[in-house]
Amino acid sequence: MKYNFYAGPAILPREVIEEASQAVLNFSNMGLSILEISHRSKEFVSVMEEAYDLVQQLLNIGNDHTVLFLGGGASTQFSMVPLNLLHAGRKAAYVDTGTWSSKAIRDGRTYGDIDIIASSKDKNYAYIPKGYPIDSSYQYLHITSNNTIYGTQYKAFPETNVPLVCDMSSDIFSRPIDINKFDLIYAGAQKNMGPAGATLVIVRKSALTKSSDLLGATLDYNNHIKGKSMYNTPPVFPVFVSMLNLRWLKKNGGVEAIQAINTQKSNLLYGELDRNGLFYSHVAHEDRSDMNVSFHLHNPELTDAFLEMCKSAGILGVAGHRSVGGFRASIYNAMPLEGVRVLTEVMQAFEASHG
Amino acid sequence: MKYNFYAGPAILPREVIEEASQAVLNFSNMGLSILEISHRSKEFVSVMEEAYDLVQQLLNIGNDHTVLFLGGGASTQFSMVPLNLLHAGRKAAYVDTGTWSSKAIRDGRTYGDIDIIASSKDKNYAYIPKGYPIDSSYQYLHITSNNTIYGTQYKAFPETNVPLVCDMSSDIFSRPIDINKFDLIYAGAQKNMGPAGATLVIVRKSALTKSSDLLGATLDYNNHIKGKSMYNTPPVFPVFVSMLNLRWLKKNGGVEAIQAINTQKSNLLYGELDRNGLFYSHVAHEDRSDMNVSFHLHNPELTDAFLEMCKSAGILGVAGHRSVGGFRASIYNAMPLEGVRVLTEVMQAFEASHG
Repeated sequence: MKYNFYAGPAILPREVIEEASQAVLNFSNMGLSILEISHRSKEFVSVMEEAYDLVQQLLNIGNDHTVLFLGGGASTQFSMVPLNLLHAGRKAAYVDTGTWSSKAIRDGRTYGDIDIIASSKDKNYAYIPKGYPIDSSYQYLHITSNNTIYGTQYKAFPETNVPLVCDMSSDIFSRPIDINKFDLIYAGAQKNMGPAGATLVIVRKSALTKSSDLLGATLDYNNHIKGKSMYNTPPVFPVFVSMLNLRWLKKNGGVEAIQAINTQKSNLLYGELDRNGLFYSHVAHEDRSDMNVSFHLHNPELTDAFLEMCKSAGILGVAGHRSVGGFRASIYNAMPLEGVRVLTEVMQAFEASHG
Repeated sequence: MKYNFYAGPAILPREVIEEASQAVLNFSNMGLSILEISHRSKEFVSVMEEAYDLVQQLLNIGNDHTVLFLGGGASTQFSMVPLNLLHAGRKAAYVDTGTWSSKAIRDGRTYGDIDIIASSKDKNYAYIPKGYPIDSSYQYLHITSNNTIYGTQYKAFPETNVPLVCDMSSDIFSRPIDINKFDLIYAGAQKNMGPAGATLVIVRKSALTKSSDLLGATLDYNNHIKGKSMYNTPPVFPVFVSMLNLRWLKKNGGVEAIQAINTQKSNLLYGELDRNGLFYSHVAHEDRSDMNVSFHLHNPELTDAFLEMCKSAGILGVAGHRSVGGFRASIYNAMPLEGVRVLTEVMQAFEASHG
């Protein structure tokens, strides 16, 4: 048995993997692979429609917002957001909570006027800034809901009348959200939604008032809305597997039910971190991510020994990101409670042998 | 038995599909799916490196050019090409040979000064323009090597000292090319290389002299070169399947060997079109595509009857594109000669019953 704690591309439910594998051989009894059918075939159009419906149902999205499945990764949204939302003469506010926020800011600045109104860079991004003033003149406020690398997560979103734009790549579908707060949400599939190659965008239609004349067609949300995510060939297989995964989520009770399990999982792991004398979490208690648990050994010389013990137990992907060091356990929706239990047991065994 | 003549996403070799399906269950004996492993894992890094190597070997690419696998589809290249190659104060020349050329022109014009120096729009794109003057002051000349919708193909590329930029989405790897003629080649995977979701770019390094300061990171070739196509998470599975397919091509003799088979296939089909009294090709004889054979019935009222007979024989995807009507048989690398033979036999049987 393997326990996949990779940060992304990341674990998927076994039944989704098996169904995906079967569709590669023979999709929907067409006698063809999902890899070799037209995206305009009625069989794939129905996949795309079901994916839309599932996103709308799971996140309780009404008619003000539109759902898109695009290619190019969430990083391409760092450009598309300001290109489509930021008008000439206006400014956008960004909060810097780590690597991905910083990249969004860097790209945003190539297109427009951007203020960093809050940052946790002073403490190597170990917390989520709060209580900063947000001038109401900003066109939007960009935040990163969960910071995969640093292990922090917004437990509440900023209270402001400035529309929020949010990179939810690593915690979308892990909990309910109030869609009305957001002009735009984007998420790369490969953490909590599906395999790499598809990007989800949820956008408030009334926010798209910029002219399309200055945008290449694939960089223009309005164009993708018109084409129902098929202006150009979509990433067919990544969308298909995302749809299967959302179907799995719905069958298992949706985001409320998964949030309950996610909380159980993160409580179990943070509980062990707080109890175990060998380990600690550097993240501000109230901002600890339920998706990516970043932690350290008080004695870093034991790092290899702990990784070795993890490996023996079938635990994969817990080495920390180079920006933070230590360890990171990504416990996305598809990670069962059992996997987290095995990890905490290994931590306890490690304490017994090295404490 | 099904014969898949879809224009794209399109047919893949059966052994590639079977290996892809297996890797979705368990990749490289890791005990994990290819869909849930890190793109930074040594197993996937070696996939990306093998994909690079195969492209270089198959197309005989030297050190002047770099290979990239990106997301976003070939349509995103319509923006990236001018954003990266067209300098302020310079002009680019485009040849309009159909839908995809026209889209490249439309997007190019949002970023720079572009002249359409030749077009076959006057005859609904049924030929490839030739013999037009090409001013040497253009920064590049953009062409579309094969026109999937209209069934035309450049048999020789323009002779000019202006660097060529070429959309080869639907005939890359179908024949040898002289890479030295090109500053940039791009191709969506989903016609002759792999499944939808990956885009191949081959770019001359010395052509990338524009500053990166004005470009979002994922729109910047230099950035992707620096990151070895992993600046952001690449479309893992589409790249993997493309690699498997290129491996298949190499094992089967490479582009010279496949060109010989492709010529046999297109000769067989065009031969039947020229012989059979019911059908005709509207494409200029010397510009007939070896990849997409577009054809018509003299009596369009027989269309449904012919499609019905095709369906009974297991022939899929031969309805023509709405811009041209009639029929289209896409006979990419993975279509065996046998499939084309079955199609010609159906055409003969149709002549016998309806002629």
